[in-house]
Amino acid sequence: MLIVDSVQYAKAGHPGMALGMAEVGYVLYRHVMRYNPRNPKWFNRDRFVLSAGHGCLLQYVCLHIAGFQSVQLQDLQRLCKLGSRTPGHPENVVTDGIEVTTGPLGQGVANAVGLALAEAHLAARFNKPDAILVDHRTYCIMGDGCAMEGISHEAASLAAYWKLNKLTLIYDDNHNTIDGPTTLAFSEDISTRFKALGWNTITVENIHSNMNSFKDALCSAFSENEKPTFIRVKTLIGKLSGKEGTSKAHHGTFDEDDVKKMRQKVNWSDRGPFHVLPMVYREMQIQADHGERLEEEWYSKLNYYQSKYPEESVEFKILLNGGLVPGWESSLTKWSASEPVDATRGYSEKCLNQLAKVLPGLIGGSADLATSNKAYLHDFKDFSQPNSPWGRNIRYGVREHSMAGISNGLALHGSGLIPFAATFLIFSDYMKNSIRLSALSKAGVIYIMTHDSIGLGEDGPTHQPVEQFAGLRAVPRLLVFRPADGNETAGAYKMAVANRDVPSLIALSRQKVVAHLEGTSASGVERGGYIVSDNSGNDLPEIMLIGTGSELCLCEGSAKMLRKEGRRVRVVSLVCWRLFDQQPKEYKEYVLPPRVSKRVSVEAGSPMGWREYVGGQGWVIGVEDFGASGAYLDTFKKFGFTEENVTRVTKSLLSD
Amino acid sequence: MLIVDSVQYAKAGHPGMALGMAEVGYVLYRHVMRYNPRNPKWFNRDRFVLSAGHGCLLQYVCLHIAGFQSVQLQDLQRLCKLGSRTPGHPENVVTDGIEVTTGPLGQGVANAVGLALAEAHLAARFNKPDAILVDHRTYCIMGDGCAMEGISHEAASLAAYWKLNKLTLIYDDNHNTIDGPTTLAFSEDISTRFKALGWNTITVENIHSNMNSFKDALCSAFSENEKPTFIRVKTLIGKLSGKEGTSKAHHGTFDEDDVKKMRQKVNWSDRGPFHVLPMVYREMQIQADHGERLEEEWYSKLNYYQSKYPEESVEFKILLNGGLVPGWESSLTKWSASEPVDATRGYSEKCLNQLAKVLPGLIGGSADLATSNKAYLHDFKDFSQPNSPWGRNIRYGVREHSMAGISNGLALHGSGLIPFAATFLIFSDYMKNSIRLSALSKAGVIYIMTHDSIGLGEDGPTHQPVEQFAGLRAVPRLLVFRPADGNETAGAYKMAVANRDVPSLIALSRQKVVAHLEGTSASGVERGGYIVSDNSGNDLPEIMLIGTGSELCLCEGSAKMLRKEGRRVRVVSLVCWRLFDQQPKEYKEYVLPPRVSKRVSVEAGSPMGWREYVGGQGWVIGVEDFGASGAYLDTFKKFGFTEENVTRVTKSLLSD
Repeated sequence: MLIVDSVQYAKAGHPGMALGMAEVGYVLYRHVMRYNPRNPKWFNRDRFVLSAGHGCLLQYVCLHIAGFQSVQLQDLQRLCKLGSRTPGHPENVVTDGIEVTTGPLGQGVANAVGLALAEAHLAARFNKPDAILVDHRTYCIMGDGCAMEGISHEAASLAAYWKLNKLTLIYDDNHNTIDGPTTLAFSEDISTRFKALGWNTITVENIHSNMNSFKDALCSAFSENEKPTFIRVKTLIGKLSGKEGTSKAHHGTFDEDDVKKMRQKVNWSDRGPFHVLPMVYREMQIQADHGERLEEEWYSKLNYYQSKYPEESVEFKILLNGGLVPGWESSLTKWSASEPVDATRGYSEKCLNQLAKVLPGLIGGSADLATSNKAYLHDFKDFSQPNSPWGRNIRYGVREHSMAGISNGLALHGSGLIPFAATFLIFSDYMKNSIRLSALSKAGVIYIMTHDSIGLGEDGPTHQPVEQFAGLRAVPRLLVFRPADGNETAGAYKMAVANRDVPSLIALSRQKVVAHLEGTSASGVERGGYIVSDNSGNDLPEIMLIGTGSELCLCEGSAKMLRKEGRRVRVVSLVCWRLFDQQPKEYKEYVLPPRVSKRVSVEAGSPMGWREYVGGQGWVIGVEDFGASGAYLDTFKKFGFTEENVTRVTKSLLSD
Repeated sequence: MLIVDSVQYAKAGHPGMALGMAEVGYVLYRHVMRYNPRNPKWFNRDRFVLSAGHGCLLQYVCLHIAGFQSVQLQDLQRLCKLGSRTPGHPENVVTDGIEVTTGPLGQGVANAVGLALAEAHLAARFNKPDAILVDHRTYCIMGDGCAMEGISHEAASLAAYWKLNKLTLIYDDNHNTIDGPTTLAFSEDISTRFKALGWNTITVENIHSNMNSFKDALCSAFSENEKPTFIRVKTLIGKLSGKEGTSKAHHGTFDEDDVKKMRQKVNWSDRGPFHVLPMVYREMQIQADHGERLEEEWYSKLNYYQSKYPEESVEFKILLNGGLVPGWESSLTKWSASEPVDATRGYSEKCLNQLAKVLPGLIGGSADLATSNKAYLHDFKDFSQPNSPWGRNIRYGVREHSMAGISNGLALHGSGLIPFAATFLIFSDYMKNSIRLSALSKAGVIYIMTHDSIGLGEDGPTHQPVEQFAGLRAVPRLLVFRPADGNETAGAYKMAVANRDVPSLIALSRQKVVAHLEGTSASGVERGGYIVSDNSGNDLPEIMLIGTGSELCLCEGSAKMLRKEGRRVRVVSLVCWRLFDQQPKEYKEYVLPPRVSKRVSVEAGSPMGWREYVGGQGWVIGVEDFGASGAYLDTFKKFGFTEENVTRVTKSLLSD
């Protein structure tokens, strides 16, 4: 009735799934899951993910009766109100006890796979026969919508491949989606499908009459040593209500008459709204107390571990404290102008491997492009069960979307893991919603995106990003870096690692850049934009060339030509717009003096957004249409990315 | 050897799959597929999709030997060269004989489902027992990468649900992806998975020793009356080469020594590169002649049909001619200020249903949000086999990515279908790459995206688009409309339907807009931006308020307040940036006079890109962070979207 009361009070929300899955929620929070409401972040707690995030009332009510301070009765009464702790979909950054932010369907399944992967990996690295520090299960509820989404399929395939036996996926088989019965668009034999992926599959036919059938299924999952478990629970959406079993129960309030009847059915007629029997709290307290004891035991185990395994314990503590060690930044190389020149993806490879040595939590992989992305930790093995679960390279196969969703799970496991996820920049399109959720849920994932412009050449327009910078820079909070050379790449990694609550995306070239630029620096990157070179002395420059990534050297080359002709030219690197925007006004006006209105930006991508920096009278050299298949230099030339063209444009602006 | 020669010549390309699948290509183009190289667009041809687009050399070579003028030997010699007809991934807009543009993995599978769906639908609408006009098969080759991608899973689930028995998916089971053997990240029993989805599944074990085994599998597919067929063909990647069977064969050239050995193996040592035996052309000519005869027969059938079934024939002809009928635009309502006010999604519903009456090709659906999107054709049934394959509503389930990929297939079937695809704007993130491919491959899909801002309210930040406008407006060629009221919605539909080679995306509000604005018009929308109101008379305005969608009325409201205080204020609707950008300079400067530097933009989305229109001194009222769960008006207020705030900002700018 708390579910019903909340929806009626809010005049909004999704009661159907919450009612149908009430028994599942009860069994998990009362009998199965290990958690301590007094410390929702206890390291070894079981993780719960509601992939069907619209059913958040189920979780809010469970958290409330389980004793989490984050969801009081008054929070249930503020469902979907601005600023409440009970938003319309669950957000980990708003409500303690919520592990990940869900709502866009299927994402939670990938998150759960990431959480289970984190557990399996850390267990292999740190557990000792006499001291099991990492040992929790991951539960995920998925609805019909989640089951249809491609991302859940990708993640499910990986979960089985990785043998994540402590992952339990609970499928709310209620035969309804928003538009009607699932028979409108779904005819799979879903259990067989999961079996074909390599899952242990169980069906619970009668949970509404016998909760033990679900408990039994969970017990069977516990005894599984290799496979993740898929439990198909047949439920009635909107159980008890007049809309029971129909899509009408999916979202929206009930008629008052219907509410009255529901109260009668459960002998609740003489209770007011939001009434909870004291015995419910007492009953749930048993599980909470159990969790508290488990946490205490865990801390004694940790103490024992520290004395018996001091070396491993140092690393474990680093992870518990967020994964960073003092001085980690100094592992990053400084490049000098005399060293051989590489593509920025090459510099990235060096940075990543240097960081892996000093950051025990750095873990990640690529969507089948490790050889092209150069995102591989050479000193470490592949994560693989049972062979090498301690391996820190993850092979995602060609599954970009779930790679990002799983990376969010790794980051939000809260165990100091610093996940990286790598593919070609163009495929950020496949991962867009998960990248967005990294930002929204404060998951500090590092996205390594190579082949970052038409400069990738032969693969042609299907593989050449054009508008991706614009779309990604517009994602709130996300830090998008486009470094120009080795030192800028190091700076990008420094900021990406340092910002643990913010995701970063580092865009890298396939093609070799022209040179290590003299004026670039990692410290410059920290401010997002900075002066790379300027021959104006005490004067202001006549013109400014603003570039990023592989085009910054075109700016430098062009500036050199213009300076020979006596022009005062400043070159600015705008490697990370958001960081630059966050600088004090004085700094921004120092780098881009308002009085210098002649400005040219050079970036092999969509012009969108550049006007902010070049001003009303500046010129934007960008790519306005799709790219073209061809050798890199031919393609660059076709779209105007040559020193000659930059110089031509600049001169024409100077003579205006 | 043509494959090898092309790669060696280009010093680029992906020979591995092309070599491993050579027999498959040969059997299809020589013995099975019905096509006429002299008219690659013959309506009733079989459709072929290479979802593993990097293997394009396979298709280029097949097209060449089959006699397509689009791929001559010199085209093979120009593989991956700028401007060639043989780009690095197949593009339908570049090379005749290519049906769709592929490369990003998995997309082609969805495209193929769309092509097969088009066939099934049109067959049901037009075929008569004595005149079968629509009767072709669709073949699609998918690689391991395609098999891993979520989009292919979604599409495969739908293909079985829709009973697309004339679709054959050929899985190149070569056990390798870029990074190594598929065992790195793949352990599915894929045939059982497809069986669980409802497919007929066949495995071909020995194609390299017995091509007939593949022919037999195809025959078995022909006899299937309900299920689509999945043929798993075990192949050796890079067949014949020294890299045979390994991921090294995936892309890149061969050692010259290896090439020599390959030539020896096939008794080709005394032939130069790019040599083709005349008998090969003669042999292939048999199939081409067969196709030509079939096309001739088809035209006689069409003549018979026209005389016997004049009514159906009129509609069929409309479709053959692209789907538009003279005067279709007049079906769209004109709203007057006195009519009841609705959300723009409500106006959209009216437009869509009006258009469906006059456009026989309008077909589409929603990813399980038809009730919320209001994207449902009420006069028509759901597409469903065998019940109502003539139905023009498509139920995609919660599968946004494949919905877009399938819509591309519907559009590129070339039969006058005008597909629409609907979901919440936030889920454009799930479909991003397919939307991009609509634009690249000139598929005139209409994307209907409701719940287009933080104005959707309670569902909260996971469902509130913020940066989506920016990302979508940056997609080359795509027309993004954000209409403000009924008349602008009609204008958006008009342009979306009229532009058959360009996809359109119409962003619509969940919440009711404030009014039918007096100054809005469908004809204004055609120019992308126009003056909605202005009290400046012969003077220039002191300030301009530029808005889109549901915020345009805030501009109008604020302008009224300011005008009362004697200010000269212009309100501009910038409903489609790209169309406005395409107008002559004179028009643009008429709407936004350069001398008026005081400008305020109002849009409940990312500020990205607005500087282009408000200029260096203008102000952008936008959303810089994620939204928040709350009632619509509370959320709007929190982010500054009230008449009061717009007026405050405007006054402060006026007093600068």
